[in-house]
Amino acid sequence: MRIELVTLGDELLDGRVVDGNSAWLGGRLADLGLVVTQRTTLPDAQVPITQLFQAIAARADWCFVSGGLGPTDDDVTIDALAAAAGVGFTHDAPTLDRIRARFGDRPMPEANARQARVPGGATLLPSEVGTAPGMLLTLAGCTFVCMPGVPSELRWHFETHVTPRLQAALAEQGQTPHHRRRLRFALVGESPLAARMGTLTLPASVRVGWRAMGAITEVKLSGPEAAAVDAAAEQVRGVAAEFHIGDESADLATATLDAFRVAGLTLATAESCTGGGIGQALTAVPGSSAVVVGGMIAYANQAKTVLLGVSEDLLATHGAVSEPVALAMARGARDALGTDWAVAVTGVAGPGGGSAEKPVGTVWIAWCGPDGERATRHQIAGDRGQVRARTVALALDGLRRGVEPHAH
Amino acid sequence: MRIELVTLGDELLDGRVVDGNSAWLGGRLADLGLVVTQRTTLPDAQVPITQLFQAIAARADWCFVSGGLGPTDDDVTIDALAAAAGVGFTHDAPTLDRIRARFGDRPMPEANARQARVPGGATLLPSEVGTAPGMLLTLAGCTFVCMPGVPSELRWHFETHVTPRLQAALAEQGQTPHHRRRLRFALVGESPLAARMGTLTLPASVRVGWRAMGAITEVKLSGPEAAAVDAAAEQVRGVAAEFHIGDESADLATATLDAFRVAGLTLATAESCTGGGIGQALTAVPGSSAVVVGGMIAYANQAKTVLLGVSEDLLATHGAVSEPVALAMARGARDALGTDWAVAVTGVAGPGGGSAEKPVGTVWIAWCGPDGERATRHQIAGDRGQVRARTVALALDGLRRGVEPHAH
Repeated sequence: MRIELVTLGDELLDGRVVDGNSAWLGGRLADLGLVVTQRTTLPDAQVPITQLFQAIAARADWCFVSGGLGPTDDDVTIDALAAAAGVGFTHDAPTLDRIRARFGDRPMPEANARQARVPGGATLLPSEVGTAPGMLLTLAGCTFVCMPGVPSELRWHFETHVTPRLQAALAEQGQTPHHRRRLRFALVGESPLAARMGTLTLPASVRVGWRAMGAITEVKLSGPEAAAVDAAAEQVRGVAAEFHIGDESADLATATLDAFRVAGLTLATAESCTGGGIGQALTAVPGSSAVVVGGMIAYANQAKTVLLGVSEDLLATHGAVSEPVALAMARGARDALGTDWAVAVTGVAGPGGGSAEKPVGTVWIAWCGPDGERATRHQIAGDRGQVRARTVALALDGLRRGVEPHAH
Repeated sequence: MRIELVTLGDELLDGRVVDGNSAWLGGRLADLGLVVTQRTTLPDAQVPITQLFQAIAARADWCFVSGGLGPTDDDVTIDALAAAAGVGFTHDAPTLDRIRARFGDRPMPEANARQARVPGGATLLPSEVGTAPGMLLTLAGCTFVCMPGVPSELRWHFETHVTPRLQAALAEQGQTPHHRRRLRFALVGESPLAARMGTLTLPASVRVGWRAMGAITEVKLSGPEAAAVDAAAEQVRGVAAEFHIGDESADLATATLDAFRVAGLTLATAESCTGGGIGQALTAVPGSSAVVVGGMIAYANQAKTVLLGVSEDLLATHGAVSEPVALAMARGARDALGTDWAVAVTGVAGPGGGSAEKPVGTVWIAWCGPDGERATRHQIAGDRGQVRARTVALALDGLRRGVEPHAH
C-alpha cells in the first residue's frame, strides 16, 4: 500500500513551525503497521498543490493532507482538491450551521462560510473540535483525506474518522492487524529503562519502540500476535513498576489524581517558581475537583508570608529557595485549606536570579501529608521552561509515590 | 529562485523523529530573503531518491539535502546523487585521513570508508564536526548541497559552507534581499481582521500571509521593498490598533507584563476554572516578578471562602460562576496581596458541571484596579482545554487593555 503525506503552509517552509503533524501521522500509521512512502510540503498556493494532488492520485493508494482548511483566502486545499478532480463545489448547509454554532453568541464572520464548501463527490468528515470539517475524496483509486492543520484538530480527525476506515481497508485486504501497547514511565530515561529491560526475554515477534516526551518515557510494543504483545507488556511493566504511571495516553497529572481519588485524599498546592503550573496541570484533568481544593501562587516573598504564613525571619535566614521555606510553604497550604496533602515548590527558574550557592535550576520541593513531611533538593538543567516543567513533574510524581504505597 | 529541501530517513516518516532540520533550514533561508518552494521527505531507498534528484534537477535552482551521509548501507545519498548525475565515484584520500583522525587511537570501522566516496564532478565540503563531509554538485543548472542529518553537523555545514555561497549567488544576480514584518493581534480572528484590512490599499509589492495560533492571529507582510513593507505594517497596525499586541514573537503574557511594567503596577490573580493557568502564563516570562506578586487557586468553594473571603452566602445565592463571586474574588486577591490590580476567573470548563442556565463554557471574568472594577460574562466554545486557554487569554487581554489607555 503506497501512502503519502502532504503538509501545507508557508509557516512549515520558512522556519516558523516544525512539522509535528507529519511525525505524529507517521507514528500513528506505523502503529497500524503501515509505512509512509513519501512526504511533501508545499506553501499555500493553489496551482502547485493541484499538480501535486494529480501526481499523487496517479501513484498512491492513500494521501493524508494536513492544513489549508481555514477560512482565509490562502487556505486553498479544498480548491486544489476540486481542481485536481475537475469538479465544482456545493455549500453544505448542516456544516454551515455547525460552524455558526461554534461561534456561540458571536456572529460568524462571512469568511468562515468558505469552510462549508464541499467538492463534488467528497465525503464530509464533521468536526466536533473546530470550525473546519475534514474531507475525503477518492481520485483515480487514491483516497485523499484532508484534515485541519491545527494539531489537536488533526489528531481528533485521524482518530475519529480515519483510523476506523484504515482498519476496515486493511481487514478487506486480509492484512493482519497490528497490535500495540504503549507503556508510560515517569522521570526515568531511556537508557536506565533499556538496561532493566535487557534482563528480560521478550517474545521474538514483538517489536520495541521508544519515545521520550519530557518527563515521560514511552515504551511501544507491537507485533502481529496480541497475546505476545500483552505478555511482553506485562513483563516490561513489572521490571520498572515504580516508574510506571499507566498505559496508552497516561500522564503524570492523571496518574496522581487517580492515586488520590482511590485513596479518598485531598490536595493543596503552594507554588513559587512554577507560578501556577502544578495547579494548571492538575486541573487540566476533568474531575480534578474531587481532589484539588486549591492553592497559592506565592511568587513574591510577601505572598509567601501573607498567603502561607512563612515568617519573614525564615525567609531572611535561609532565603526563599531553601528546605525550611519549602516545608513551611507546604505546611501553610495544608493548614489553610485543611487538605490531607500539600506540595510546595520554590526554586531559581532563571535566566536571572542564580548565585554560586543556588545556581539557576536549583529547586526545593516539599510534600506534607498525614504521615509526615519530606523535602528534596534538585538541580535541573535547561532553560526557564524546562526547569519549570521538570519541577511540575517532580512535584506530581512525589505526590503519586506518596499515596501509592507500592510505588515508593 | 526555486529552492527545494530534501530530508532523508525512515525515522522521519515513522514518527520517531520530528523534522527539525527542514524548519531550521527554512528559517535560515528566510533570513537570507529566500523562500522554499517545496520540501520532500523520502525513506532510505536509493531508487526513489535518484528519481527525486532527477526531477528536482529539471525544475529547481538550489536543492538542500539533509541526511543519508552516514557509514551504513542504508545511507544512500551519495549513491543516488551519482546515479542521478550518471557518474561514478572516486575515493578522496585526504577525506579518508580526516575520518580516520576523528577516531583518535581507536581503529576506524571499515564501513566509514564509504564516507570518503565522491561522485565525479562534486565538490567536497570538509567537516570539522563529524566524519561525514558535505557535498556540492550541480546537475542541469541545479546546485545540490548534501549535508549530514545530525542537526549540529547540518547547521555547521550550512553556516560554514553554504551561507557564503548563497550570498555570493544572490549578489551575482543583483537580487534585493527580502523584507518581512510579522504583526500579532490578540482575540480577533482572521476573518474580522481581513475584513478591516479590506478597507486598506496596501502597496502592490507587499504579500500578505496569515497564521492562527490560539488567541493570537499573525499577519505576515513581505516584499522586496523595505519601505513598502514598513508602510503596509503601519497601515495594518492602525486599522486594528486595539487588538495589536506587538510584532514578531510577541505574546499576550509578555504584552500584559510590559504594559504593567511601563505603568509601574503590580498584579494578583484569583483563579477557579483555570486552576493556575493565568499565573503559569505570566510567570513563564522572565522578569515577571516585577509585576506578579502572587495569586490564589480557589478551585473548591471552600478555597474561595478561605483564601479570598468570598462569603458562603454569596456563593449560595448566586453560585460560584456568577458576576458577584467573580468580583468578590478579584477584590479578595487585590486586598490580600495589596496589589494595584487583580483579575479573577470562575467558570464551567466542562465536560461536566454545566446546566441550562450556565452551560459548559460559561465564564465570568472580573478585573479590579485603582480606578474601579468590571466583570464580563463569556460563552466559550470548545473542550475543557480550549475553554481554559481562551479564559486565560481573555483575562490577560483585559488586564492589558485596562492599563493601556489607547487600547480600550
